[in-house]
Amino acid sequence: MLFLLYIVSLLSSHAFLSPVPNNPLFKHIDDHTHDYKQRLKDWVAIESDSSDPSKRDQVVHMMQVTKDYILQLDGKVEMAELGEQEYSPGIKLPLPPVILAEFGNDTNKPTVCFYGHMDVQPAKKDDGWQTEPYTVTEKDGNLYGRGTSDDKGQILALLHAVESVKKFGLPVNVKLFIEGMEEVGSHGLEQLVEQKKNTFFSNVDYIVVTDTPWLSTKPGITYGARGNCYFFLEVDGARRDLHSGGFGGTVHEAMSDLVYLLGTLADVKGKILIPGIYDDVLPVTEEEKKLYKDLVFDLEDLERDTGIKTFLHDTKEELLMHRWRFPSLTIHGIEGGFSGSGTKTVIPAKVIGKFSIRQVPKMKPSVVEKQVSDYLEKQFAERKSPNKMKVTMVIGAQPWLANMSEPQYLAARNAVKKVFNVDADMIRAGGTIPIAKHFEDVLGKSVMLLGIGGPDDAPHGQNEKISMHNFIEGTKLYASFLQELASF
Amino acid sequence: MLFLLYIVSLLSSHAFLSPVPNNPLFKHIDDHTHDYKQRLKDWVAIESDSSDPSKRDQVVHMMQVTKDYILQLDGKVEMAELGEQEYSPGIKLPLPPVILAEFGNDTNKPTVCFYGHMDVQPAKKDDGWQTEPYTVTEKDGNLYGRGTSDDKGQILALLHAVESVKKFGLPVNVKLFIEGMEEVGSHGLEQLVEQKKNTFFSNVDYIVVTDTPWLSTKPGITYGARGNCYFFLEVDGARRDLHSGGFGGTVHEAMSDLVYLLGTLADVKGKILIPGIYDDVLPVTEEEKKLYKDLVFDLEDLERDTGIKTFLHDTKEELLMHRWRFPSLTIHGIEGGFSGSGTKTVIPAKVIGKFSIRQVPKMKPSVVEKQVSDYLEKQFAERKSPNKMKVTMVIGAQPWLANMSEPQYLAARNAVKKVFNVDADMIRAGGTIPIAKHFEDVLGKSVMLLGIGGPDDAPHGQNEKISMHNFIEGTKLYASFLQELASF
Repeated sequence: MLFLLYIVSLLSSHAFLSPVPNNPLFKHIDDHTHDYKQRLKDWVAIESDSSDPSKRDQVVHMMQVTKDYILQLDGKVEMAELGEQEYSPGIKLPLPPVILAEFGNDTNKPTVCFYGHMDVQPAKKDDGWQTEPYTVTEKDGNLYGRGTSDDKGQILALLHAVESVKKFGLPVNVKLFIEGMEEVGSHGLEQLVEQKKNTFFSNVDYIVVTDTPWLSTKPGITYGARGNCYFFLEVDGARRDLHSGGFGGTVHEAMSDLVYLLGTLADVKGKILIPGIYDDVLPVTEEEKKLYKDLVFDLEDLERDTGIKTFLHDTKEELLMHRWRFPSLTIHGIEGGFSGSGTKTVIPAKVIGKFSIRQVPKMKPSVVEKQVSDYLEKQFAERKSPNKMKVTMVIGAQPWLANMSEPQYLAARNAVKKVFNVDADMIRAGGTIPIAKHFEDVLGKSVMLLGIGGPDDAPHGQNEKISMHNFIEGTKLYASFLQELASF
Repeated sequence: MLFLLYIVSLLSSHAFLSPVPNNPLFKHIDDHTHDYKQRLKDWVAIESDSSDPSKRDQVVHMMQVTKDYILQLDGKVEMAELGEQEYSPGIKLPLPPVILAEFGNDTNKPTVCFYGHMDVQPAKKDDGWQTEPYTVTEKDGNLYGRGTSDDKGQILALLHAVESVKKFGLPVNVKLFIEGMEEVGSHGLEQLVEQKKNTFFSNVDYIVVTDTPWLSTKPGITYGARGNCYFFLEVDGARRDLHSGGFGGTVHEAMSDLVYLLGTLADVKGKILIPGIYDDVLPVTEEEKKLYKDLVFDLEDLERDTGIKTFLHDTKEELLMHRWRFPSLTIHGIEGGFSGSGTKTVIPAKVIGKFSIRQVPKMKPSVVEKQVSDYLEKQFAERKSPNKMKVTMVIGAQPWLANMSEPQYLAARNAVKKVFNVDADMIRAGGTIPIAKHFEDVLGKSVMLLGIGGPDDAPHGQNEKISMHNFIEGTKLYASFLQELASF
C-alpha cells in the first residue's frame, strides 16, 4: 500500500522529478561524448550481418570485441558456445557465442539483466544508402550506419551507462546477456536461457531488453511486441533456368505459380485471407482504448518520414493498434528470379517467395504455420500446376505482453522523468523481440523493453541512424534507471 | 523453270549430295580445331555483358578484338560509332561500335552479308553455374561458358569458315555486320541499317543471321522468329524501405500491389489474359500444319534437358506452334525486393516487375504496348491502391517470317546435305532476332537464319555451352554454304 502511494506521488509530483542541473553523473556522460561516438564507429565497421553466411566470422569477431570491452570495464564474462547451425541441408555454420557478463554480486542489491544483440540486418550501398552502411557518418545531429540504432548503439549506451554509474558506485547488480543471431531468429538462445535458469539467471530480478525505439521524440517504455512467422514459399519448375524465347508458351513457369500464390495471401487493405488466422487475436478492451488515446503520435511526422500520404487506417488509434496488436502480412521479395537492373529474358527454374506474418497474443506460431501451409497447399492443388510447391516456416517467434505495474516499469518511468522531464509513453513494438516472451515463460521474471532508438531510425531499411541526442541522453536514461531501480 | 527442276533434283538425289570423303576444305578445318577452340576461350573470357552498365567497356573491348581478327584475315573493317545510350534519366553510357567488314568486292559474284553479335547475357557463378561462366571449360565433348553458343561461338565458326574458304579462293563476296547490344534490344542498330542502305548494304544480295540453334542434333534452317515486348511494371510505395515490424499492417505495400498485378497477366495454362492480345495472330494454315509434321522433335529429349514431365501442350506440333507461332508471356523477376538468401524483414519501398511478351506475326509492338498499359492501368485503378504504378515497354522487338524459296535457302539446304548428309529441318526461332525483320523491311533483301547452336545449349540460362561437333562441323557448314551460294 505504501508502495502504491509512493508511486502515485512519484508520477504526480512534477517538481520532484525535474532534471538535476548539475548532476555529476550526467556531466561525466556529456564529457565522454567523443569517446562514445568513436566506439560506435569502430563497432559499426564490423559487418556482423547474421543473415549472410559469408559474414558469420564477423559476427563472431563482434562478440569478441564486445567481450573485450566488458573486461576493460572490470566486468566478468563467460562466453556460452552454441555449436553449429544447419544453414541448409549439408551446410553447417558456427553459431556466434552468447555473452553472459556480470558487474557486481551483492546479495543485498537487486539484480537487473539486460538483453541485446550485436548482429545486424543486411546492408548494401546499392540498396539505396546515401552513405557507406558500415562507415558511421555524422550529419545534422545523426549518426548513420547499419546497427547504429539496432542494436549496437543501444548496447553501447548501456555499457557507457554502466561505466559511468560505476564511477559513483553501482547501486544494483548488473548482468548482460548479449547474442549474435537476433536478426535471423536467435538460434539456440531459448535452450541457453533454459540451461542457465538455475545458474546465471537464478539471482536475476528484472530483465530489460535494449532493442526498441520510441514512438516519438518523447521516450517510450515498451510492454509488448508482435511475433514473426517467416515463410519460404518455394516453387520448382524446370531443373535449370530456361530462355523465354525457346520455352515461353510451352512450360508451366514457376514464377507464374509463385506470383499467383503470393497474391492470395492478403487483400489490398492488408486483410490476411488465410482462414482462421484472426481467431486467436485478443479482443480490444475499453481500458486498452484509453491507453491509446494518451499516446503522442504525429501522423504528419509519419507522412514526412515515409513519404506516404494515405495509410491503411485513418486515426492514430487505428494505426497504432494495427502496428502493435493486430497481425499483418508482408511479402518481402523473391529469391531465384531475375532481380538485377536491366533486362534478362529468363524463365527462372526455382523461385522462393519470402513473406512473414507478424502475429499477436494469443496466436501461436505452430497454429499459424499449419493455417498457412494448409491454405497454400489448397490454393496450389486447385491451380493444378505440375510444378512442385513447398512451404517452410523458417522463423516462428512468439508475441509478448507484460504486466506494466511491475517495479522496474516504475523505475524506468522515474528515470525518463529525471532525464527528459516528461512522462514516458507506454507503448508496444510492432516488431519482434522473441526472447522477451521466452524470458517470461522460462524464468518467470518481469520483462521490460527500455530502448533508446528514435521513431525514424529505419532499423531494417536503408540509411539506418541514431540521433546524437538519443545516443547520449539514452546513456543517461540507462544510468538513471540503474540508480532508480535501487530504491525499489 | 530450269531452276526449279534443278532444286527438285538437288533435294531428291541423295547420292549426288553425299559428303566428299577427302574434301580438302573440311580437312583444313579439322586440322585447325585446336586454334579455333583457343580463340573461343580467349573471346569468352571477355565479359561483354551488355545489360550490366559496369561491363560496357568490356563490350567495347570485345568489338575491338573482333575487328583485329578480321584485319588479320585481310578483311576490310569500318567501325560505325552509335554515340551514347540514355541508360536511365541523367545516366549516359557509350554504345559499342558496330563492325562493318568486307572480304572481296567482285561485282561478278553474289554478296552475302552475315549478321551476329558479340555481347552476351548476364552470368554469375552464384546463379547455379557448375563452371566459371567466363572460363571456357571442356567436358564430355562440350565447351561450357557464357557466349559459347550465343553468339561468340557462331560468329567464330563463320570467321574460321571465311579463313578456310579463302585458302581455296572465296567464291562469293562476304560482308559482316556485327553488333554489341543484341541482348538488350540492339540500340541504334535499326538507324544504322537505314543509314548504310545505299552504301555498305547496296551490293548485298543475301543476309544471313548467325544467332540461332537447331531443333535437334539435325541441322536446321530458320525462316521465322518471335518478337519481344519487354515491360517494367513499377510500383512505388514509401520513399524508403520500411521495417515489417514497425509498418506491417499500416501501409499499402508496393510488393502486394505488384504481385497482384503480375498475377493478372496470364492463367495457369499460359493463356495471356490481356484483352485483344491474340487478335492479330495469323491463323494456322493447312500447309503450315504439314510442315510441323515433318520436323524431328524428341519430347523425351526435351524432358531430359529440362527435367519437366508435364508441358503446357501434349503433342510435338502443339508444343512447337506455341514455341514459334503463338505469343507467350513470362515473368522474369522482381527488382527492388529482398532477393538474397536467408531472411530480411523489409517492406520494399519500390519494386519493379519484369515481364515480357513474345509476340508473333502480325502483332505490332506499339499495339501490344497499348494493350498491356491499358489493361494494367485498369486493373490497378480497380484495386484502389494509393501507391503509384508505371508501365514502361523497354524493348519492342518485331517478329519476322521469311519466304523460304529464296536462293540462299536452297544453298543452305545443299550445304547441310553436303556436310551432314541429311535434309535440313525448316524451323523457326521462339526467341527474338529483331534485326531480321528490320533487314527485310529496310533493305528489301532475303533474310535467313543459319545458326549452328545445339537445341540444349541453354543460351540465356546457366551452363551455356556449344558442342565441339556443332562448333567444328558448323564451321564446315558455313564454308560449304559460301561455296554452294556461288552456284546460284
